[in-house]
Amino acid sequence: MPASVAVVAGIGNGSGTGGAVARLFAKEGYTVALVSRGPEALDVLAKSIKDDGGVATPFPIASYGADDITAAFAAVQARYPAPEYAVTVAIFNAGHGVWKNFLDVTDEDVREVSKVNIEGGFAFSRAAITAFQKNEIAANGARGTLIFTGATASLRGNVITSAFAAGKFAVRALSQSLAKEFGKQNIHVSHAIIDGGIATGNTRGDRGQPSSGSENPTPNLKLSPDAIAVSYLYLVNQDRSAWTWELDLRPAHEKW
Amino acid sequence: MPASVAVVAGIGNGSGTGGAVARLFAKEGYTVALVSRGPEALDVLAKSIKDDGGVATPFPIASYGADDITAAFAAVQARYPAPEYAVTVAIFNAGHGVWKNFLDVTDEDVREVSKVNIEGGFAFSRAAITAFQKNEIAANGARGTLIFTGATASLRGNVITSAFAAGKFAVRALSQSLAKEFGKQNIHVSHAIIDGGIATGNTRGDRGQPSSGSENPTPNLKLSPDAIAVSYLYLVNQDRSAWTWELDLRPAHEKW
Amino acid sequence: MPASVAVVAGIGNGSGTGGAVARLFAKEGYTVALVSRGPEALDVLAKSIKDDGGVATPFPIASYGADDITAAFAAVQARYPAPEYAVTVAIFNAGHGVWKNFLDVTDEDVREVSKVNIEGGFAFSRAAITAFQKNEIAANGARGTLIFTGATASLRGNVITSAFAAGKFAVRALSQSLAKEFGKQNIHVSHAIIDGGIATGNTRGDRGQPSSGSENPTPNLKLSPDAIAVSYLYLVNQDRSAWTWELDLRPAHEKW
Amino acid sequence: MPASVAVVAGIGNGSGTGGAVARLFAKEGYTVALVSRGPEALDVLAKSIKDDGGVATPFPIASYGADDITAAFAAVQARYPAPEYAVTVAIFNAGHGVWKNFLDVTDEDVREVSKVNIEGGFAFSRAAITAFQKNEIAANGARGTLIFTGATASLRGNVITSAFAAGKFAVRALSQSLAKEFGKQNIHVSHAIIDGGIATGNTRGDRGQPSSGSENPTPNLKLSPDAIAVSYLYLVNQDRSAWTWELDLRPAHEKW
Repeated sequence: MPASVAVVAGIGNGSGTGGAVARLFAKEGYTVALVSRGPEALDVLAKSIKDDGGVATPFPIASYGADDITAAFAAVQARYPAPEYAVTVAIFNAGHGVWKNFLDVTDEDVREVSKVNIEGGFAFSRAAITAFQKNEIAANGARGTLIFTGATASLRGNVITSAFAAGKFAVRALSQSLAKEFGKQNIHVSHAIIDGGIATGNTRGDRGQPSSGSENPTPNLKLSPDAIAVSYLYLVNQDRSAWTWELDLRPAHEKW
Repeated sequence: MPASVAVVAGIGNGSGTGGAVARLFAKEGYTVALVSRGPEALDVLAKSIKDDGGVATPFPIASYGADDITAAFAAVQARYPAPEYAVTVAIFNAGHGVWKNFLDVTDEDVREVSKVNIEGGFAFSRAAITAFQKNEIAANGARGTLIFTGATASLRGNVITSAFAAGKFAVRALSQSLAKEFGKQNIHVSHAIIDGGIATGNTRGDRGQPSSGSENPTPNLKLSPDAIAVSYLYLVNQDRSAWTWELDLRPAHEKW
Repeated sequence: MPASVAVVAGIGNGSGTGGAVARLFAKEGYTVALVSRGPEALDVLAKSIKDDGGVATPFPIASYGADDITAAFAAVQARYPAPEYAVTVAIFNAGHGVWKNFLDVTDEDVREVSKVNIEGGFAFSRAAITAFQKNEIAANGARGTLIFTGATASLRGNVITSAFAAGKFAVRALSQSLAKEFGKQNIHVSHAIIDGGIATGNTRGDRGQPSSGSENPTPNLKLSPDAIAVSYLYLVNQDRSAWTWELDLRPAHEKW
Repeated sequence: MPASVAVVAGIGNGSGTGGAVARLFAKEGYTVALVSRGPEALDVLAKSIKDDGGVATPFPIASYGADDITAAFAAVQARYPAPEYAVTVAIFNAGHGVWKNFLDVTDEDVREVSKVNIEGGFAFSRAAITAFQKNEIAANGARGTLIFTGATASLRGNVITSAFAAGKFAVRALSQSLAKEFGKQNIHVSHAIIDGGIATGNTRGDRGQPSSGSENPTPNLKLSPDAIAVSYLYLVNQDRSAWTWELDLRPAHEKW
């Protein structure tokens, strides 16, 4: 049986969802491909995973444009070729965040949201699904699992989220369309709505070290990236007879 | 530490979601309280769980009216009193199914839907939450978890589901209200939308034996009750920093 | 051609949505049947409509239970029989409001919500649709129009709305089911989500006189019942090729 | 008082929603600015409106890119300057339709959807809202009304609508964000979900003449553009105390 490769796109500084997902899947035995801008953060994360005994390789990209994403996915497959490897998990965690009153949103903001979320999301999905179609069916019934990271703004536009929500709504539409089209090919597509602030290195004011659930000082108020990652792993392992397209995740004390 | 009690309401003939949930939580070490109409099916299920080394007690009810539900919950707590025991999980899987064209729906149908889904759901929730409030906070951060079983009809009314959907929409409203109100008390409330047919004894035409995921002959087309149960267990074990209120579950090949 | 009868259920003190709808439809030439508890308020409203040159008859009910609603509708039809009259519009504006923290909601609260919203809603709908089925098709293509008054709580449960939202969600499910089933019989079913406070006599602190849009001192913050009524009239007059099931209505400055 | 200008973007061949909206608003006394690709269709429509006694001017664009839209709106305002004129209505009816299985959707398809729906939608909205902010408040309480044309794909992604739905979801997010942000400035933003096929010249197989509701041979199965236009006019005229953000419109016999 080939080794399973998990491709994780959107790592940021490594202390948020993307980093936590990469670390968890590495611990679970996946070979992890890290696709993101910011080669330094990718290197730090890859090294940290290797230090913990995992396998992770950075595939830095210049942008989330279709060509760059397509090339990065091809590079992953060239580095981890069949029949020794099979891409069975793909996580699209990228997104361009714009939080501005509407009249401050520029055309460039809009184009960047479209590029990262939509153009990037479509290209990533195409590469992932094309890869999954070549896989055998695993024990849980799946040829592969594609997960999108959503947000509150996936469900509701609001005063400062016109551009951000436009991108997030679009990704949700994509994920639902894919779930409906490819379920019958035993490809699982999910959309996780992260409805709250995430306890990343940034928001915790620390030095960008990977956070962990056990360290999250505010489990009631902020999502631990590690807890999000556990949900992603759960989605990947779901039995084919009861797949989730969408779930929401929020801290216990979140107001909503 | 007290032993954890899981109260499961709505068992039917034992071959569906309620039965699978009871068996799985018993395997996980929970003391399971079975609340349902049909004492015979409860006895068969309780015996089957005991034969597998689990602990399960039937608490048969005459109806899902508020008084009967409240009394049953009290009986559970009398049988499994603090400080030896603590009710930490409550599953409301009951529901009155009516699938008729609207003009065939009788006033009695409507009253029975209201009684089982709404009156029963409120009484069950009150008992569960009151019980949870007395608990210590567990390792994952929760005082208790209350899960409702939803259906396609929780999200959409349709030609033959006016009465069924009315009940299911109402339960969804209840579950969302509770999630918002009691999250800050570290009580987790979830709503699982079962969007597809379930591979129960009935629909499989077998002799009503408990089904299991591994036996589900149609994992693409019908949900295995065991797979649903795995999701419920996952919800119960979620870390407090990333709780799910709602997820959908459907077979890989479901059209939706 | 028969005279058109509009049946309006749920009048309250006459200063809110039900009263405004009754007055507007009377002005438009409808014979208006007022179905509600509180015979005094019905009498005052009927007299006020007659003073303005309209036709309105009170049909007071003791409760929104199925039997009372069914009897009231029959009384309307006995008073305004075919072929001189035809019931072409039915507005279900009733609802039992409960705004309490969940643990303060009593079983009686829950039963009353179920009775008014669900049992009453089903009985009213059955009577309306059965009446509509006997009608000729009008110029706009409809045999009749049934409108339900929804609320914010039709879409979201919240901390103090567990019971209220349960009832409102249920009515929304009913309305959607009916729209899908009876559209093909040229019966139009709509659901109006009133997402904000209404400028009734009560909330304005006046003496319960019927309010009017032009008098609403807070058009940005509260909905004028008259403006809601205009929307209902618009729904009734929609062309059959472009019917609305659901619309939301809120004041310009509403936060949502 | 200045003359009211209605800017309608997205006219197609003139036989669909955009054309019907332009004709109806012209009949209602608006000066109509037609913004669309395809100068010939614009000329035909403008001439047809003038022949009926209305005022309409074509503002053909090369694309829905932000620069072209912004320039077109500026040209409208130059042609109809304050204080003689005021843009009080803006309709964004444009959209790039892609109906393909996902793996047939090209990067170019995705970029075109993003450009027309999102980039174009944002630029059009910015120009409209900036124009509205200069207006006096009209009798119904509004400074201006911005309406977006949605579709079934605004609410649900499906097998052949991954790209189309992505664009339509994004526009819905934009419209909701704007409604929330600018309601308090007395600017009304609406989103109309057209849930069904439209009886355009194209689908009726005729010669592209403007259709009219009275000619729609299939009012049960297809939406008359004229009926849609009536809804848009209704939205524009709503009282400020009860504004609709979203409504759905579908033929009486639509399956949904």
